[in-house]
Amino acid sequence: PSTPLSSRTDLLFPSQTPGNNKLQRASEIMRHGYPSSDQLKHYDNYVLMYDRRNRNAYWVFEHLTPAQLDRDKKQSDRTKSVFLEDASVHPYFRSTNGDYKNSGYDRGHLAAAGNHRHSQEYMNQTFHLTNISPQVGKGFNRDIWNDLEKYVRSVGRKSRNLYVCTGPLYLPRKDPYDGKQYVKYEVIGKNNVAVPTHFFKVLLIEDNQGEFELQSFVLPNQEIPNGTKLRNFLVPIDSIERAAGFLLFDRLPKEKLRSINGKKI
Amino acid sequence: PSTPLSSRTDLLFPSQTPGNNKLQRASEIMRHGYPSSDQLKHYDNYVLMYDRRNRNAYWVFEHLTPAQLDRDKKQSDRTKSVFLEDASVHPYFRSTNGDYKNSGYDRGHLAAAGNHRHSQEYMNQTFHLTNISPQVGKGFNRDIWNDLEKYVRSVGRKSRNLYVCTGPLYLPRKDPYDGKQYVKYEVIGKNNVAVPTHFFKVLLIEDNQGEFELQSFVLPNQEIPNGTKLRNFLVPIDSIERAAGFLLFDRLPKEKLRSINGKKI
Ligand SMILES: [Mg+2]
Ligand SMILES: [Mg+2]
Repeated sequence: PSTPLSSRTDLLFPSQTPGNNKLQRASEIMRHGYPSSDQLKHYDNYVLMYDRRNRNAYWVFEHLTPAQLDRDKKQSDRTKSVFLEDASVHPYFRSTNGDYKNSGYDRGHLAAAGNHRHSQEYMNQTFHLTNISPQVGKGFNRDIWNDLEKYVRSVGRKSRNLYVCTGPLYLPRKDPYDGKQYVKYEVIGKNNVAVPTHFFKVLLIEDNQGEFELQSFVLPNQEIPNGTKLRNFLVPIDSIERAAGFLLFDRLPKEKLRSINGKKI
Repeated sequence: PSTPLSSRTDLLFPSQTPGNNKLQRASEIMRHGYPSSDQLKHYDNYVLMYDRRNRNAYWVFEHLTPAQLDRDKKQSDRTKSVFLEDASVHPYFRSTNGDYKNSGYDRGHLAAAGNHRHSQEYMNQTFHLTNISPQVGKGFNRDIWNDLEKYVRSVGRKSRNLYVCTGPLYLPRKDPYDGKQYVKYEVIGKNNVAVPTHFFKVLLIEDNQGEFELQSFVLPNQEIPNGTKLRNFLVPIDSIERAAGFLLFDRLPKEKLRSINGKKI
């Protein structure tokens, strides 16, 4: 079960190799098992990195096109989809429907179900609990986060390609009593599923000229007043990268990027 | 900088591959960069997985032998080692000496410097900040944690092979006010280096008959009264695995395991 699935990224992108001596020594040091902390999962229409410590994704990537989002090509019925515990995750690290029950939180999608309406199977796959995080229901999952998902689709319908990365954050806050910074988040259920303090969504939009625009949002996982504008949640992408622990879209040729968070560059 | 170093684990252990269709689709979805959340680092005499979100290791593995720990073969001087920021970690995710300064915490070793006295270079490498976590100094790093490190070496001197895995934990606690479980930890410095709530150390001891004994410890990162026995901190290994998010020594043939935490099996 500790097979490093993440190792297969090298099939897509070659990477650096440590010297032979170090690899030889590593094979001795690691003789009795090689743990992997994250786990890469390839679904049919999205890619996800699972954080086995927090029982949430690290990130979920989607690639949306006008064809995929065409309302006339809808081939699915959301009521036929059910939330699925992911048997490919070791039971120690798997989130379950039971963890969410009576927690007070919604089972919130990271890759939005509504982005995958062109196939019942693809939509069903977004209901894997690996793609689900505990989200505040009223005022968040059912409201502004849903608005953000609709906005993403409206962008996708008029772009040549739209790449979307979505994930949870666990942001520090200053304690007013001692002035120190703390990360604090709830964990739910017997599997201690982390409740993220925030969620991010980053859109890389390719127009019909092959030029790119970047938009990056961070929303707190809490009830947000009706009517709050999405643009209030635009943040510099590096603030997401630093907090999340990874770089986003770093292979994009920088000279093709024409706009960031609505500002021309 | 997002090159998935972790991908190279496949050089050591082959792993499962998703189908070609999914890999093909993934190469489209991930066209503009493939984030990796953890980072595998091969040093000359230990192996480490770095948690770029918390700026601590996930785990550090060592392999100790009587020859390596022989006091007559000491070839190093600890005062010649300096704490090194690890330039191979992207600056967004790198912990620095400045982060520790005035934090109130020691720069605590995960792979103990004293396990690598047979080579100045090997000892120096344990001073990379990737191998360092913020530890309470008095009553912990300078006392019971140091005692545990000495105990490890005493075991290593009389075993054919000793495999040691060490790492941080961020354990939930019940809030007495609302009865819910929360993970809470401080972060220090401008890079928000996480202060683990606990540390684990797991020993896999191979005797001269090729049979194995497992000992697994979890200690809270706090001042612990002098004279507290190390055996009070023995815990079932699965409690570490569940909290840490990975399996330990899972390739060990179970029939060769003769003792767990001092109990024959
Ligand atoms: Mg939702
Ligand atoms: Mg120490």
